[in-house]
Amino acid sequence: MSKFTQQPTDDICIATIRALAADVVGKANSGHPGAPMGMAPVSHVLFSRFFNANPKNSKWYNRDRFVLSNGHACALQYILLHLMGYKLSMDDLKQFRQLNSLTPGHPEAGHTDGIEVTTGPLGQGFANAVGLGIAQAHMAATFNKDGFDLVNNYTYVFTGDGCLMEGVASEAASLAGHLQLGNLIYFYDDNHISIDGDTAVAFTENVEQRFLSYGWQVLHVDDGDHDLEGIYNAIVEAQKVKNKPTLIRLRTTIGYGSKQQGTHGVHGAPLKADDIQALKTKFGLPADQSFYVPTETYKVYGEIAIRGAALEKKWDALLASYGQKYPKEYAELTRRIAGKLPDGWEKSLPTYTASDAAQASRKLSEIVLTAITPVLPELMGGSADLTGSNLTRTKAMVDFQPESTGLGNYKGTYIRFGVREHGMGAIANGMHAYGGVTPFVATFMNFVSYAAGAVRLSALSKHQVIWVATHDSIGLGEDGPTHQPIETAAHFRATPNLDFWRPADGNETSAAYYVALTRRETPSILSLSRQNLPNLEASSIERAAKGGYVVHEEQSEDLTIVSCGSEVSIALEAASLLKAQGVKTRVVSLPCWSIFDSQPAEYRLSVLRSGAPILSVEALSTFGWQKYSHEQFGLFGWGASGPYQKVYEKFGITGPNLAAVGKKIVAFYKQKGGEVISPLVKAI
Amino acid sequence: MSKFTQQPTDDICIATIRALAADVVGKANSGHPGAPMGMAPVSHVLFSRFFNANPKNSKWYNRDRFVLSNGHACALQYILLHLMGYKLSMDDLKQFRQLNSLTPGHPEAGHTDGIEVTTGPLGQGFANAVGLGIAQAHMAATFNKDGFDLVNNYTYVFTGDGCLMEGVASEAASLAGHLQLGNLIYFYDDNHISIDGDTAVAFTENVEQRFLSYGWQVLHVDDGDHDLEGIYNAIVEAQKVKNKPTLIRLRTTIGYGSKQQGTHGVHGAPLKADDIQALKTKFGLPADQSFYVPTETYKVYGEIAIRGAALEKKWDALLASYGQKYPKEYAELTRRIAGKLPDGWEKSLPTYTASDAAQASRKLSEIVLTAITPVLPELMGGSADLTGSNLTRTKAMVDFQPESTGLGNYKGTYIRFGVREHGMGAIANGMHAYGGVTPFVATFMNFVSYAAGAVRLSALSKHQVIWVATHDSIGLGEDGPTHQPIETAAHFRATPNLDFWRPADGNETSAAYYVALTRRETPSILSLSRQNLPNLEASSIERAAKGGYVVHEEQSEDLTIVSCGSEVSIALEAASLLKAQGVKTRVVSLPCWSIFDSQPAEYRLSVLRSGAPILSVEALSTFGWQKYSHEQFGLFGWGASGPYQKVYEKFGITGPNLAAVGKKIVAFYKQKGGEVISPLVKAI
Ligand SMILES: [Ca+2]
Ligand SMILES: [Ca+2]
Repeated sequence: MSKFTQQPTDDICIATIRALAADVVGKANSGHPGAPMGMAPVSHVLFSRFFNANPKNSKWYNRDRFVLSNGHACALQYILLHLMGYKLSMDDLKQFRQLNSLTPGHPEAGHTDGIEVTTGPLGQGFANAVGLGIAQAHMAATFNKDGFDLVNNYTYVFTGDGCLMEGVASEAASLAGHLQLGNLIYFYDDNHISIDGDTAVAFTENVEQRFLSYGWQVLHVDDGDHDLEGIYNAIVEAQKVKNKPTLIRLRTTIGYGSKQQGTHGVHGAPLKADDIQALKTKFGLPADQSFYVPTETYKVYGEIAIRGAALEKKWDALLASYGQKYPKEYAELTRRIAGKLPDGWEKSLPTYTASDAAQASRKLSEIVLTAITPVLPELMGGSADLTGSNLTRTKAMVDFQPESTGLGNYKGTYIRFGVREHGMGAIANGMHAYGGVTPFVATFMNFVSYAAGAVRLSALSKHQVIWVATHDSIGLGEDGPTHQPIETAAHFRATPNLDFWRPADGNETSAAYYVALTRRETPSILSLSRQNLPNLEASSIERAAKGGYVVHEEQSEDLTIVSCGSEVSIALEAASLLKAQGVKTRVVSLPCWSIFDSQPAEYRLSVLRSGAPILSVEALSTFGWQKYSHEQFGLFGWGASGPYQKVYEKFGITGPNLAAVGKKIVAFYKQKGGEVISPLVKAI
Repeated sequence: MSKFTQQPTDDICIATIRALAADVVGKANSGHPGAPMGMAPVSHVLFSRFFNANPKNSKWYNRDRFVLSNGHACALQYILLHLMGYKLSMDDLKQFRQLNSLTPGHPEAGHTDGIEVTTGPLGQGFANAVGLGIAQAHMAATFNKDGFDLVNNYTYVFTGDGCLMEGVASEAASLAGHLQLGNLIYFYDDNHISIDGDTAVAFTENVEQRFLSYGWQVLHVDDGDHDLEGIYNAIVEAQKVKNKPTLIRLRTTIGYGSKQQGTHGVHGAPLKADDIQALKTKFGLPADQSFYVPTETYKVYGEIAIRGAALEKKWDALLASYGQKYPKEYAELTRRIAGKLPDGWEKSLPTYTASDAAQASRKLSEIVLTAITPVLPELMGGSADLTGSNLTRTKAMVDFQPESTGLGNYKGTYIRFGVREHGMGAIANGMHAYGGVTPFVATFMNFVSYAAGAVRLSALSKHQVIWVATHDSIGLGEDGPTHQPIETAAHFRATPNLDFWRPADGNETSAAYYVALTRRETPSILSLSRQNLPNLEASSIERAAKGGYVVHEEQSEDLTIVSCGSEVSIALEAASLLKAQGVKTRVVSLPCWSIFDSQPAEYRLSVLRSGAPILSVEALSTFGWQKYSHEQFGLFGWGASGPYQKVYEKFGITGPNLAAVGKKIVAFYKQKGGEVISPLVKAI
């Protein structure tokens, strides 16, 4: 494969892709034709000459991964998937951007066969691919043996200027260079056009020099519109260098073939009908036919599928003989590829009684990780330069590092992400997309917000990523309001398909991990304290795993306090003070709203029952607690810097003050009269 | 000032700062001594030889700006402010990180005299400084005249590895190079240590090469611990180059003087008492005295203050004579420095009647900008490469660009931010901190989340930044769920001191701008539609400026629907359908929750009154609406790609379906019996 041979069918294949892109976007009357038309040549060379995948089994583990980081160009990806024979018909192409189609406006993993990661939000795909590369390197180091090069795929990425401007891509690029990920090959579609027009208005950096500074191999092809041999040779060079990611800068013409080629007029709007006709004529295609695919084109792309099927078959045989020679590793590899948890793993989860010492939930998290990582070797992750604060590195862990650094190796499971939260989140999505690993990532809870763009894509794309988010309230104390989350819990509780956990003690922390690990299609954020928390009398993994339960019961109560995390023990103190004053107060712990919401109505109504007012207490914004309570106590502004006990006092989150607040509420509802109905009782 | 002369007091001053840093952190028993100790030499050279500021008037407009991007090193900044005579006493230093002190754990603008921008969240200060530089360049171009170099300050920035790893800094750095901001001088404290230990674990990129790729001047000083002349000369070189920002890489030893110097042991924990004593002895300071400042040190720093006061006096005279020669420009400059809006500006705001054509609120926003930018020339901003979609560039605007690009000039007010949302948000904070400009920024609402780290600091630091956040729901249609915000409104509504507006029509859009522009200490997000919205009968700027009001009144109603933005007209349609079926339905528009919350209780209770159930409707997550309604209708998962009317239908947000939902609710509450009390009636 080291020398390029022009095939008579190359031109027609490229023309087919370009014309189809114009047709797909034209019929939808919505979308981006320019980049697909400009990137047709590189797509054709990559897929016809290099790409190893089996369209009939898009989940074959050792397939090459393809990421379209400039996801707005997805007409291109859909066309390629269709031509190669993935589950995407010509009718699907005609339904581009229509409701309930397989061809939505941006590519969605899990929705369309052959899409590895969801892209469109710029920069994400770029960083996802670094995660794909990390997982590949790790699985290869862990499972490959002499003569059994089972895991050796490449990850190929298309990226535009937009992605390269995004900080998340910069973060991921710097880390990829540090990690020497030679399995990554990126094509930068340098077409000089972005939505605002010529990139000269905002993007004049020297991209090649920038990627060299990150430690990448950088190549370029000056005529990406025609120089197929140049593209071919660049890919060969990229594959040769094993200890560096490669960026191939391709100078292309956006919307190549259109009358408006090279302008931003072809970026995000369909071509006019006459323009489409003219370009078909120019390319030697029938001008009057839409969605036309010449037989030769289907044949060439069908051969890619045949090649891929043969490769998978060969691989299956290799895996089988690996199973003969290395039965233990085989069992483990196939279990991990299948995404199954080992039987009985949950028995390793620590449990506690109320007499156990108070500990910070970040410390409890460390204890969980120490207990479970030996039985769940697929747990792979790290922290954004807060290892000693997040407590995410267990003593037994080895750093995931290139051997040459002397700091670890690719078998290592602990990743030093650097201060790169957004990159970390997006990389974790890619790691999960690769399969075989379950990623966890860590930072202070306040800085999960830096990664919001990646977190919402974890949730949308069903990537099981576990966030260890420590220092989760004013309870972090001295670092002050710049570091104290207020709005953060509301943000993530409002996100669909995301479990936000704020455990109150040891058993609840174990429960959070238990549920997070078993929810294979849902990311979780574990919001953990810096300060020590006593173990509750009533907690257990089983009870907490319901998302909410009664931690202190009273019959014919005057008040229920619902709380979570570090405030549950304060609520219990308030309840005890109130009891001494004759006010019967139940306390409910609600560590995870989304899981609680999924319980049967009867259970939920037994926990947050009618009959007495319910007061919520949390050392964060009260926003959202109205769903579960009649009255809310929390922070109504920013936090403060100081020793944490004093900060709690300042904001009135203490047993005595909450008891006073509770009495006021009880008096108010008594005076108001009438039955107090649970806020969970709803018409819709 | 072009040649360095060693002063006999230099060493003692540097030793004072280093010892004070150890004492300040030691007494607090919390904080970061290492960077302050390592950066004492550069601080001393910069402030004693170059820095122009008047500690007695920290708001003097033409002062040099200092940004400590590695804000965790704030013991250093507090010490410098104290020594120079800002309003920060030795007692304040002793109260470091204590509750209600002027010396919180990270520096907060508006809280402590002399702090320009809030730092600590890494990367923010780096990007804020680019905003300071943009505003300086713009104000200089706009107001300076021959012989009147009124605005010519520098912005000096300290940054560590942490900031340089953050994507937000990469984004800002690339833009600063493009914009050729010669007024920016950054010092990179290259101490090879971050929280995870040696930077070799995660940060091995070539920083000098990277900044060269961005178009910066890059210098270095190999011995930042001792080479004062080298530091001095680097600053001189930096000042000489007028068309490039400068990065000076200083190789320093973290915690210089400590027994643990050069290790991560001195990064984030106090030094031991014996270590502090030993370093004082080493530096020739009395080992047994804490918080000791030699007379010479106070004298040297007192002279900086004297120099600064004289500079301000001279500047005042220059300004006065400018006022003689250019009275109009003088009036405008002083108005803008004072942050006053011109009288009667609000008369330019467009108003509408119900017969005016339906328009997208993003278009209504463009009409507002077109109307008000001529009377509010301080409005300066742009879009993250979505100008044609956000509609933020009025026809009269000129691009803010270096003249050499041929694309604009520094007088221009329109900024091409590139696809750099987080950088854009942080830059806008810096622009506001500079004064004289009112920044606005734009992207799709979903991608404001990329900038969450900067948005929360706008709110915390009271930066009046206006976000034009278009494409604000499933109403964007074909781009699909990757671009359709769901959780975004909840996130920003939960943020303190942030006004999140979702206007329903033309008058409400004008109201949103009116309030956003008059709220001088609060950032605003204007959430705007892609799709057309009819003008409401009942809307007016005055009514909408209350944050919530009745758009359709009924007496003895059966139901109230509360909504906002593009769903208000759908709610009105539902009300009309319900009326035809005998169900009397009021409709309330609630474009801004925080503003509505600030109205008198009586008003709020008249809008969302007791007596009938209240149903909220919004094409976003229902999260948070429980505060204003008994029942909630909205999105319970992700959106979908397709023409927007079909997407609305899919999720049941149509007049007929809402009417059906409304009837169900009315029946439920009738059956339930008892009085229906407004959710605004609360005990606390
Ligand atoms: Ca481009
Ligand atoms: Ca450092």
